[in-house]
Amino acid sequence: MRVAELSRRTGVPVPTIKFYLREGVLPPGELTSPNQASYDEGHVRRLRLVRAMLEVGRLPIATIREVLREVDDKDLHGRLGRTLYPLAGVKENEPASPALAAAMTDVDALIARWGWRIDPVSPGRRRLAEVMLTFRELDVAYLMTEIDRYAQAAEMIAESDLRGIATERTADDVVTGAVIGTVVGDALQAALRRLAHEHTSPRFFGEDADAGAARNPADGESRPEPRSKRGPRPGRP
Amino acid sequence: MRVAELSRRTGVPVPTIKFYLREGVLPPGELTSPNQASYDEGHVRRLRLVRAMLEVGRLPIATIREVLREVDDKDLHGRLGRTLYPLAGVKENEPASPALAAAMTDVDALIARWGWRIDPVSPGRRRLAEVMLTFRELDVAYLMTEIDRYAQAAEMIAESDLRGIATERTADDVVTGAVIGTVVGDALQAALRRLAHEHTSPRFFGEDADAGAARNPADGESRPEPRSKRGPRPGRP
Repeated sequence: MRVAELSRRTGVPVPTIKFYLREGVLPPGELTSPNQASYDEGHVRRLRLVRAMLEVGRLPIATIREVLREVDDKDLHGRLGRTLYPLAGVKENEPASPALAAAMTDVDALIARWGWRIDPVSPGRRRLAEVMLTFRELDVAYLMTEIDRYAQAAEMIAESDLRGIATERTADDVVTGAVIGTVVGDALQAALRRLAHEHTSPRFFGEDADAGAARNPADGESRPEPRSKRGPRPGRP
Repeated sequence: MRVAELSRRTGVPVPTIKFYLREGVLPPGELTSPNQASYDEGHVRRLRLVRAMLEVGRLPIATIREVLREVDDKDLHGRLGRTLYPLAGVKENEPASPALAAAMTDVDALIARWGWRIDPVSPGRRRLAEVMLTFRELDVAYLMTEIDRYAQAAEMIAESDLRGIATERTADDVVTGAVIGTVVGDALQAALRRLAHEHTSPRFFGEDADAGAARNPADGESRPEPRSKRGPRPGRP
C-alpha cells in the first residue's frame, strides 16, 4: 500500500509517518520507483505499536528506538532481556548516592526473601530502589509497609503475563508481545488498581453503611455482604 | 526560609521554583517585604510532591495543578474521589467510539463479576476500556485472557494501599498520601512487576536448567526447587 493508505488504515497523519521513518522507529517501505515506496501489514502493526508506546506508555522516541532495535534484532539469545531492560524506566547511569545505595540494600533483601533470581546487571533493582527512595523523601515510607504483599501480587501478575506471552508462535511475536505487555500492561494494571481503590475505599473511610443504605435499602439481599462484615476475604475466580 | 534556602533544601533551582509559583502548583510564600517572601516546611513538602508527580508520574503540569487544587480544597466530602479522578489518565471527553463502547461493556461485566462498586461518573471505567481497546488494536487481546487474575491482584494491592493510607492522622495527610500512593505507587508496582517478570521468565522460556546449572551445580540444595518442578505455588509471606 502507499503511504496515504497506511495513514488511513492507522489514523496516523502522513507527515507523522514520515517523521517516524526519519527517526528510524518505522522501517522504510519497499521502493517501487525512485520516489515511491510500498508498505505492508508489518508497517501497520509497527505503527500501532509505536503509537501505543507513545500514547499509552508515554515513552520518549529515543527509548522507543532502542526497544525496537532489539525487537528487530535477529540474534535470539538474551533478546527478551535486552529488549525489556530499556523499559525499566531507569533514567541515568549516574553513580548511586548513599541514600540510593541504602535503598538498593532493601531491594536486595526483598529479592532474597522471595527467592527471585535477578541478573546483577538488571536495571529493575535500581529502578525499584529509586522509587522506594522517592517514598522516603516524600515522608510516606509507611506506604511500603505492605511491600511483601505487593511482591506477592507482582508474582501473580507476572505469572499470568508470561502464560499469555508464551502462547505466541514465533520468537518475533513473543518479543513484540512482551513489549506491548510491559508498556500497555502497566496502564492496564494502573487502571485496575484505581477501580479497586474506588471499590475498597468506603471500607476504610467509612461511607459504606450510609452510601449503601441510601442507594437501595433492599440491596443487601441481592449482593454480597460488605467486606467489612465478612472478615478476611475468601479466594475468588 | 528564603527562596534560596528552599532551593537548597529541595534541590530545585530557583527559576524552576518561580515557574511553579506562576503555574499555581506551589502556593505563594508569606510576604515579609514588598519583594521578599518566606517559605516553610509545607513548601518543602509540596515541592517534593510536585517533583514526584513530574518525574516519577510523568504527569503534565495542568494535571498536577488540577490534583493539587483538590488536595488544597477544605471541603472534605468526596474530596478523595475528586482528587484521584484526574489521575485516572483519561485524556479526552470525546464521545466513545463504537469500539470503545464495546470495550466498556466488557469492563462493566468485569466490575459486575467482582462485585466492585464504582461510581457511574468514575473515569476508571473508561480508562480501563481504552487500555483494553489498545490491546485489541495491537492484535494482542490474548494478553488479557487472565484479566480476572489481574483483578484479583488489583484487589490485594488496593487493600494494602488503603491499609497504609488509613494510618494517616489528618484528612490532609490522607489526601496527600493517596496522591503519592497513586502516582508513585504506579511506578512501584511497575518496578516490582518487571523484577517478577525477570524471575518468572526462565520457567516459561526454558533457560532454567542450563542457567541454574551453569552458575552453580551445587546450588539446587540450598535454594528452593525451580517452580516448574514444584507444581502450583503455595502461599508465601
